[in-house]
This record gives sequence, C-alpha cells and structure tokens, in this order.
Amino acid sequence: MTENRSLVTTFIEALDNRDWEAWSALLDPDVVYEIPQTRERIRGRDRYLRFNREYPGDWHLRIRVVIADEENGVAWFVWEVDGEEPVDAMAFFTFSGGLIISVTDFWPEPYQPPPGREHLVERW
Amino acid sequence: MTENRSLVTTFIEALDNRDWEAWSALLDPDVVYEIPQTRERIRGRDRYLRFNREYPGDWHLRIRVVIADEENGVAWFVWEVDGEEPVDAMAFFTFSGGLIISVTDFWPEPYQPPPGREHLVERW
Repeated sequence: MTENRSLVTTFIEALDNRDWEAWSALLDPDVVYEIPQTRERIRGRDRYLRFNREYPGDWHLRIRVVIADEENGVAWFVWEVDGEEPVDAMAFFTFSGGLIISVTDFWPEPYQPPPGREHLVERW
Repeated sequence: MTENRSLVTTFIEALDNRDWEAWSALLDPDVVYEIPQTRERIRGRDRYLRFNREYPGDWHLRIRVVIADEENGVAWFVWEVDGEEPVDAMAFFTFSGGLIISVTDFWPEPYQPPPGREHLVERW
C-alpha cells in the first residue's frame, strides 16, 4: 500500500515536472489510460507518454489527496493551465507487479446548482 | 482502515436503500458536505439528511471502487436517475472518531474531446 501511494504521488509530481523518465518508469508497458467523459482510450505507455508530452499549455498539477490500497489508488489534484482558474480533477489507478496498469481521469466542470435547496445550502 | 472502507461502502449502500437511520449513524453531527463544482456547502448531519431525503427522482447508486485509509476515503460510483444514462460520480470522505466528518462530491459531465490527439486515441 505504501508503495502504491508512492506510485501515485510520484506519478503526479513527475508529470508536473515533465520528468518523463521518472514518469514512464511507473507505468506498465501495456498501461491503459481512459477518459470516460470523452470516451477516449489510449493503449500503451509509449502513446500515453506522447499524449502527455504533446498536451498543450503550461499546465501544472498539485496533489490534494492520495489514497491507495493493494489494487486501487486515487489522486485528487488541482490542475492549472496558463494562469486560468485552477480546477479540481481526479485520477484513479490500478496496480500490478509494482507498476501502474490503468489510469482513469475525471475532469468535473463548474455548473449552476439546481433550484430548490437554497434553504439548506450556503455558497462560497 | 478496514473500518473506514466499511463506512464508505455503507454510506453508499444506505443512500441507495434510503435507509436514513443507517446512513445518519455514519455521520458526525457536524459533518460538512461540499460540492465544489457549484460552490455549495451544507453544514451538519440534520441538513445533509434533509438534502438527501428531498433530492428529487428515483436515483440509485452503485459502487465501482472504494479506497480508504485512516484519514481519507473515496467512492467512485455510478449514479442513475429515472432511467437516464448512468454517470460516474465520486465522493471523497474524511474521518474522525469512527465517523464521517466531511463529504465532497464531484459530478463530471460528458464533453467533446479537443482536437489534435486523434493519432493516439480510440473512442468507445
């Protein structure tokens, strides 16, 4: 578990640092990356590396929470790009043989709250 | 950790079953519930209970992944309401004294992938 926590933490930090060697070393060659919101999938470490190297903008990630057990992990992180408003995002991981074998990202966007709950809620 | 995993699992299952007694028993009286996407916050178990009791629709939750350690937990679950397309959502938890002291929900929505990565990606 400690090792998997460390895999997740290093994954985020190495991405933020563009340390592609350290980042790639965490991944199984057959890692699968998915973004369910767009129904996109990338198969394999090489393509996934290229996806991140080519991702435009001066983007940065900052960890908020990491949790991991023997099979699953998650990073809740803050994503900031080109000085825009930072957003929360989260990546779920699975592990095998000391490596990351899947990554699933979620990118929630701001929305207006539905009416009818103002009597219970405060806004910030 | 096992206890906190169980808190998270029971939280989702009791919500799905509208078992308000079992659900409330998991929560600290001063629990804080937040939805960062709408910047909404609900303070206290009583209001949070009322929020869920009043939430419209025949909604259901099904657990996909639960991870927890001593301080933090997460549930990645599938949310379905009134026969609409099921969506992924996630709730992060913090714990103290064997109870849930905070819940933070995220509700990611589908979006169109940006252009420029078609050479790396498959769609489903």
